[in-house]
Amino acid sequence: MSELPAHVDIRDVSLRDGLQIEAPIPLEAKLELLAAVAATGVREMEATAFVSPTKVPALADAAELAGQLHNFPGIEFSALVASPNGAKRAIAAGLSSIEYVVSAADGHSHANVGRSTAEATALIPEIVAIAHDSGASVEVIIATAWDCPFDGPTPPQRVVDIVTAATDAGVDRLAIADTIGTTTPRRVSELIDRIRPSVGDRPLGAHFHNTRGAGLASAYAAVCAGVTRLDASSGGLGGCPFAPGASGNIATEDLVYLLRDSGISVDVDLPAAITAAGVAQRVVGHELPSSLLRAGDRKLS
Amino acid sequence: MSELPAHVDIRDVSLRDGLQIEAPIPLEAKLELLAAVAATGVREMEATAFVSPTKVPALADAAELAGQLHNFPGIEFSALVASPNGAKRAIAAGLSSIEYVVSAADGHSHANVGRSTAEATALIPEIVAIAHDSGASVEVIIATAWDCPFDGPTPPQRVVDIVTAATDAGVDRLAIADTIGTTTPRRVSELIDRIRPSVGDRPLGAHFHNTRGAGLASAYAAVCAGVTRLDASSGGLGGCPFAPGASGNIATEDLVYLLRDSGISVDVDLPAAITAAGVAQRVVGHELPSSLLRAGDRKLS
Repeated sequence: MSELPAHVDIRDVSLRDGLQIEAPIPLEAKLELLAAVAATGVREMEATAFVSPTKVPALADAAELAGQLHNFPGIEFSALVASPNGAKRAIAAGLSSIEYVVSAADGHSHANVGRSTAEATALIPEIVAIAHDSGASVEVIIATAWDCPFDGPTPPQRVVDIVTAATDAGVDRLAIADTIGTTTPRRVSELIDRIRPSVGDRPLGAHFHNTRGAGLASAYAAVCAGVTRLDASSGGLGGCPFAPGASGNIATEDLVYLLRDSGISVDVDLPAAITAAGVAQRVVGHELPSSLLRAGDRKLS
Repeated sequence: MSELPAHVDIRDVSLRDGLQIEAPIPLEAKLELLAAVAATGVREMEATAFVSPTKVPALADAAELAGQLHNFPGIEFSALVASPNGAKRAIAAGLSSIEYVVSAADGHSHANVGRSTAEATALIPEIVAIAHDSGASVEVIIATAWDCPFDGPTPPQRVVDIVTAATDAGVDRLAIADTIGTTTPRRVSELIDRIRPSVGDRPLGAHFHNTRGAGLASAYAAVCAGVTRLDASSGGLGGCPFAPGASGNIATEDLVYLLRDSGISVDVDLPAAITAAGVAQRVVGHELPSSLLRAGDRKLS
């Protein structure tokens, strides 16, 4: 608990992971949400995904949205891809930061992208080549890093193997994702300790859903274990359409409250993040699970 | 993170802290909730409070409820009191476990019981004498241990002073409470480390509200710091009528999920706890913030 980092980078995933399970909303509404999130001071945003518009209709406007990102200077925008073709589309649309997702469990991998973990892992070098040839960076996100709804608990060695393949291929960053919101802090610490030697000095991020209430506890455990990059969404938007039971990324404003109160600096302004969460709730048209949106920042006289 | 306890005792506070802010419900409904909670296997329950029925009308039936507790053998029932008179009433009603609450902040102490922290602390020996003379045990619960809505952050030395007075007076147990749901794991660790020498080998509990989403993270930090007793309520019922903005104890079922997944044993059965949360939601007649009540236990094929 005593070796907390001085700073944690928050990547806002509202527009991709946050919206992908929602009914499609107009581009104008996405840009309104983007502007509200940009006003928080966040430095990184996952803007969209270049995946099948049939499977994820909420993100079918990926290229159109990408064409608007130049209006928000100072933010590094990334896009998630699931294939070399997706990476090419993202780069053609102007993105310079690619996230390639590999599910550590075969069951989820097949459901998500129609490939086994080994097949998806084997594509990493090609994705890296496509990105690096265009001057873009690549992050490999390891989905179902702890549990799979189809295969059960994920053997940690499967995660290690993907990390090793990714570092061998020269990826720029890595992240581990609790895709279905089932992990808890002790398992977070254990997995990070396990993969650390293979990660080396590459930046390691973590991605949590608050489905069973332990998202912030897991995020804090990740930070205690040395992670300095965390994904979060405005209001706790989000889920995974191919993972039964998944719901809600950890809410940016709740995460900022916890980190700030722990003496860890973040680029996100808390009042602006609460405002953005209100915008998020309005554009999707239903209540979001954020705690701060209800309770507000602490008010001590 | 590596020195987790093998077992954590959960005290269910649904009937007291969980209901005190609610509109009064009939005794029959309380007994239905009590039966559902008792069926989880929990070994300790905070049954009610012997305080002003004018200030806390939801608990005005304290003596009547206490008269029914003999129907639930095998559970240690406690009652919260705020004065020597309350302790006498609790013991006369048959309780053998007394919780005496002392607010570490003068602002909250005055709002809660009309006395300063020093005045409330000075009553500890009298409460202990009343309880011990009747063979009852006493736990001192230190409210606003981290923050006070009126006085701001609580200087840790104020908590240490109460701990010292309580141990000098021979209390049986101690607990620290985040009355308004503002603390976070780092401050939890720090306060526990600070008071540990004064607590000695007496059992130390902790009580968290999930008002700003960090309740489970704080609970886990407390366990990592050596706490082996945690309060929680069915469905996340609860709040404090005299602390603006407070809402929701940590939910028993969410806590059980996290502890069980961390390899820590508890007496509470998770499916039964989810059932009890459903009963809690029905008897209060509004949605409760529990995560497990929505998502259910993880279902891995």
